[in-house]
Amino acid sequence: MTDSTATVSSLKQRVHDFAKERDWMQFHSPKNVSMALAAEAGELMEHFLWTDAPASHERARDPKRRGDIEDELADIVIYALEFANVTGIDLAAAINSKMAQNARKYPVEKAKGRSDKYTEL
Amino acid sequence: MTDSTATVSSLKQRVHDFAKERDWMQFHSPKNVSMALAAEAGELMEHFLWTDAPASHERARDPKRRGDIEDELADIVIYALEFANVTGIDLAAAINSKMAQNARKYPVEKAKGRSDKYTEL
Amino acid sequence: MTDSTATVSSLKQRVHDFAKERDWMQFHSPKNVSMALAAEAGELMEHFLWTDAPASHERARDPKRRGDIEDELADIVIYALEFANVTGIDLAAAINSKMAQNARKYPVEKAKGRSDKYTEL
Amino acid sequence: MTDSTATVSSLKQRVHDFAKERDWMQFHSPKNVSMALAAEAGELMEHFLWTDAPASHERARDPKRRGDIEDELADIVIYALEFANVTGIDLAAAINSKMAQNARKYPVEKAKGRSDKYTEL
Repeated sequence: MTDSTATVSSLKQRVHDFAKERDWMQFHSPKNVSMALAAEAGELMEHFLWTDAPASHERARDPKRRGDIEDELADIVIYALEFANVTGIDLAAAINSKMAQNARKYPVEKAKGRSDKYTEL
Repeated sequence: MTDSTATVSSLKQRVHDFAKERDWMQFHSPKNVSMALAAEAGELMEHFLWTDAPASHERARDPKRRGDIEDELADIVIYALEFANVTGIDLAAAINSKMAQNARKYPVEKAKGRSDKYTEL
Repeated sequence: MTDSTATVSSLKQRVHDFAKERDWMQFHSPKNVSMALAAEAGELMEHFLWTDAPASHERARDPKRRGDIEDELADIVIYALEFANVTGIDLAAAINSKMAQNARKYPVEKAKGRSDKYTEL
Repeated sequence: MTDSTATVSSLKQRVHDFAKERDWMQFHSPKNVSMALAAEAGELMEHFLWTDAPASHERARDPKRRGDIEDELADIVIYALEFANVTGIDLAAAINSKMAQNARKYPVEKAKGRSDKYTEL
């Protein structure tokens, strides 16, 4: 299973099956899954707390940390997929819609090379 | 673009192109993207702060909130995809590996119907 | 040192001295400290992911978990105090100002017994 | 009310009274308060997402942002105080205990000028 062949649906199904086999649907409310997702996002950040940006690139390549960072990112996406499962959200469609909004908020000619929020462009 | 047809690679490419067109790669260090991801995870949670689990299901179905919740989830996954882009992580492979670990930590016969951490099973 | 005698200034001083002795001011930018704070907030949440509200009260009283929960809360406040140190914010004054705003947003007669956001009252 | 005169108890009392007047104790489980705290921590971070460390110091001094940053920090500490209220934690004692642990993990002679985790010193 790699990014070039895996569809979002196939990943959602895998996460759903895992939870269902364990009878965990009872715990997977949107509230709880959003909490778990945020907690995992905190764990990913922990790898980069005291580094600057260039050093954070190095850390992400460091073989001693690489596996852990991959695991943290996977945890986040697993919960995002499960959130989509329990709420019936089509994730690709939601991303599509959000990126169309972002394109309107951040037109290339105004946003190029700037990190400002759209309200400050 | 829907979950049943979109591959992870196609979504990653879309996010990459958006950032590249705006010359935003300079801001997208692993450190910064992990922060943005965590901040968005906080925003998703905000929809469910004071509700209990059943009410959080209702909120996620409420037409007045549904669009916002879809947008917050999309933001999270967009940053997860961008984190994978800037670090060269194959997300499907990382999920595959993490779920295999989870299956070992949470064997069905021990974990069924229980929300305990694997260290407490 | 207990809550009835400790002033905010005395706690801020203690945190400042600890960082200064270790020559850590160079790492304690507002950006980095806000990240560390958010990461610790995620760790506190982890104690309550899959429980409902009543069970979260029990967990906070459970002698096996109590010490860890106290430590996580302390970590959060230590970083909040350090954030105030490095930015020169008077925390008590900031709390005072925010609670006055909250009192205007959530007047007792409208907000009593309701968890709605002020924009929905 | 300023940091040099405000005790932790006086701030805890103020936050407790505010919640009690509005009959909000029913919503303030440890679970819910920890979520709200983490969501506010995300909002504080949002001020510093794309800046480097020196620019984050500038942002925290920028008069146009200063008030918002003070409010976000206040929100975090208000929820930390309320978490202490609903769990009966003495915050100053918890900080005292945690800093004593930190002093053992990070002895000055080993930790000076280094941002490494104690497990890597």
